[in-house]
Amino acid sequence: MKFEIMRHRLLDGLNDVMKAVSSKTTIPILTGIKLELTDEGLKLTGSDSDITIQTIIKAEEDGEQVIRVIEEGSIVVQARMFNEIIRKLPTSDVEIEVKENYHTHIRSGKSKFHLIGQEASEYPLLPEVLDDRQFVIPADLVKSIVRETVFAVATSESRPVLTGVLWQVKDGELTCVATDSHRLARRKISLEQALEGEYNVVIPGKSLNELSKIIGESSQPVNIAITNQQVLFKTEDVSLYSRLLEGNYPDTSRLIPTEYKTIVTMNGKALFQAIDRASLLAREERNNIVRLSSLEGNTVEISSSSPEIGEVEEEIQSTSIEGEEIKISFSAKYMMEALRALDGHDVIVQFTGAMRPFILNSVHDDTVLQLIVPVRTY
Amino acid sequence: MKFEIMRHRLLDGLNDVMKAVSSKTTIPILTGIKLELTDEGLKLTGSDSDITIQTIIKAEEDGEQVIRVIEEGSIVVQARMFNEIIRKLPTSDVEIEVKENYHTHIRSGKSKFHLIGQEASEYPLLPEVLDDRQFVIPADLVKSIVRETVFAVATSESRPVLTGVLWQVKDGELTCVATDSHRLARRKISLEQALEGEYNVVIPGKSLNELSKIIGESSQPVNIAITNQQVLFKTEDVSLYSRLLEGNYPDTSRLIPTEYKTIVTMNGKALFQAIDRASLLAREERNNIVRLSSLEGNTVEISSSSPEIGEVEEEIQSTSIEGEEIKISFSAKYMMEALRALDGHDVIVQFTGAMRPFILNSVHDDTVLQLIVPVRTY
Repeated sequence: MKFEIMRHRLLDGLNDVMKAVSSKTTIPILTGIKLELTDEGLKLTGSDSDITIQTIIKAEEDGEQVIRVIEEGSIVVQARMFNEIIRKLPTSDVEIEVKENYHTHIRSGKSKFHLIGQEASEYPLLPEVLDDRQFVIPADLVKSIVRETVFAVATSESRPVLTGVLWQVKDGELTCVATDSHRLARRKISLEQALEGEYNVVIPGKSLNELSKIIGESSQPVNIAITNQQVLFKTEDVSLYSRLLEGNYPDTSRLIPTEYKTIVTMNGKALFQAIDRASLLAREERNNIVRLSSLEGNTVEISSSSPEIGEVEEEIQSTSIEGEEIKISFSAKYMMEALRALDGHDVIVQFTGAMRPFILNSVHDDTVLQLIVPVRTY
Repeated sequence: MKFEIMRHRLLDGLNDVMKAVSSKTTIPILTGIKLELTDEGLKLTGSDSDITIQTIIKAEEDGEQVIRVIEEGSIVVQARMFNEIIRKLPTSDVEIEVKENYHTHIRSGKSKFHLIGQEASEYPLLPEVLDDRQFVIPADLVKSIVRETVFAVATSESRPVLTGVLWQVKDGELTCVATDSHRLARRKISLEQALEGEYNVVIPGKSLNELSKIIGESSQPVNIAITNQQVLFKTEDVSLYSRLLEGNYPDTSRLIPTEYKTIVTMNGKALFQAIDRASLLAREERNNIVRLSSLEGNTVEISSSSPEIGEVEEEIQSTSIEGEEIKISFSAKYMMEALRALDGHDVIVQFTGAMRPFILNSVHDDTVLQLIVPVRTY
């Protein structure tokens, strides 16, 4: 294998695949990345066996030569070291050549590196993904789904299936649900092309976070293919394979109340900031609980106290309060994360009493639902 | 105590004094900051008992009212909490009022905090500093001294006096020396006003780093006053008191060679970057050692190798090599820190053989000297 490549393009590719490489892997070859060179371009693969990311750097892009392919071939090189070397090389071009015994020479200006590589065929093969169970979502919408749901997954491994997000395809609609049993986040999307049949897969939260980092802000299509144990997200340049979580995801539909006794409409940003301030004192008590009370004249009071430190109270003018009076306590962290997922828009908060879960929606868009289970204090 | 203040000015002041507050203090009242309000303005004090920082926010600045003083007084409030509250308040003005039992009320817009404070007289008093042993250095020069020396102090506590920088005033000259016994950094400055007598004080490296953060980039004067156990750095708005380190600082003058066998002049930035790259491989071996060799034709080679990973070599064109051939090994980290302190200028590196300490100077300025003890490998 021998080629010359524009250094910044190689760095962009490495930047993507390095996200899948973990130093904690138990499979030694996965501390490396695989380089495969053909006339078409250079394919890079990185994996921690849960997530695999593959990217292709085309030899020619928009008529510009990115790679000068001298001899096709493949190699596995130590990922972190290779990435740091490429990052620190002195010139804008890099020459890479593999000689006998997988000795890999890297040249740039007057700097010469020589790394001991490994046989590419020893690198694990990618899972096969069939073409029949596929659908397409624009990249920016995928990023929204991730932002609106993943924060609500469980972080403890006591129920592993809750560390993932349920993606449910049914009747031309995708529903994504995450819950740690104290709060729940749900996003619904109408799919442009209807899929035959029904699919339920649970994708690890971590995989979705990495996905969100490697796909751009654009509306370019992301092709999503589901198999029994894997999901593949594929854009023009990058593919991310993730294993799926096993186990039955709980039925969450009954958690969501169907009727409400108090409905408050207010500015999401003002509510977020008031809770952020109130949580300064709540945090000291380690439970991070703040109180919300409806007052006269469409006023909402946010308060918190800590016997040793002091107390805080703040009034927010809401747009409207309908129904019964409400006094309720909840986790400031959960509320702030839910409001952040609703992106600062005006929100409708619907309560069914101080002991029942309450939900938040954006005024402008009911495809995103955030649910929070209150804390018993009143 | 009762006053209104522009929130961003209070934040600026807090930003300075918070640098001295440590959550690890064994003296409970030092988790607080002291606020003292007079007609003149608001004085803030923070301390971890090693370092004390005091700043004054004037009631009026350039004809603009910064503080509206309603009732003079003083209080100690929990530092981290107070700082975070002020940072997150909703409006640009803050009202602070102390009522009975040190209850401190903070109001901004519709947000009301109420903190339990402590009696200001319980806060430790500042050390007395006499006026006679004083000299003045511009702030930007103080920052240079810190940048050029502090990185070389010892981090281990096995010889506590080496965790500080020796400041020696003698015959109208200030000499600052730091060493961890593997390398040494020295900076000399001519003082504008000569001081009577001779002073030797060792200032903790940490205090100098904090000092560097709170004084601006400007050339405003920093007044430096020395007592037996304390040093005070004072600008118009901010004062930093630091305890001094006890113990005799070693005589380092004999460490510095007086004659040299090889003198290399080269670009400091090119040398830094070559060593940075070579250290990628050196780091894997945990000793972080790179080699420098003089070659024919004013060429310098930087190289390193790691049996399991690979090797690197790189040639740099020097301006000149005078004297004997040299092959020498040293810590990449020490060399990079020394070059960084010389700020990327062309450097003169002077060797006295592979086993003897070598020194680095800037071509343009010999007030800064960096010395490195080599490692035996050849």
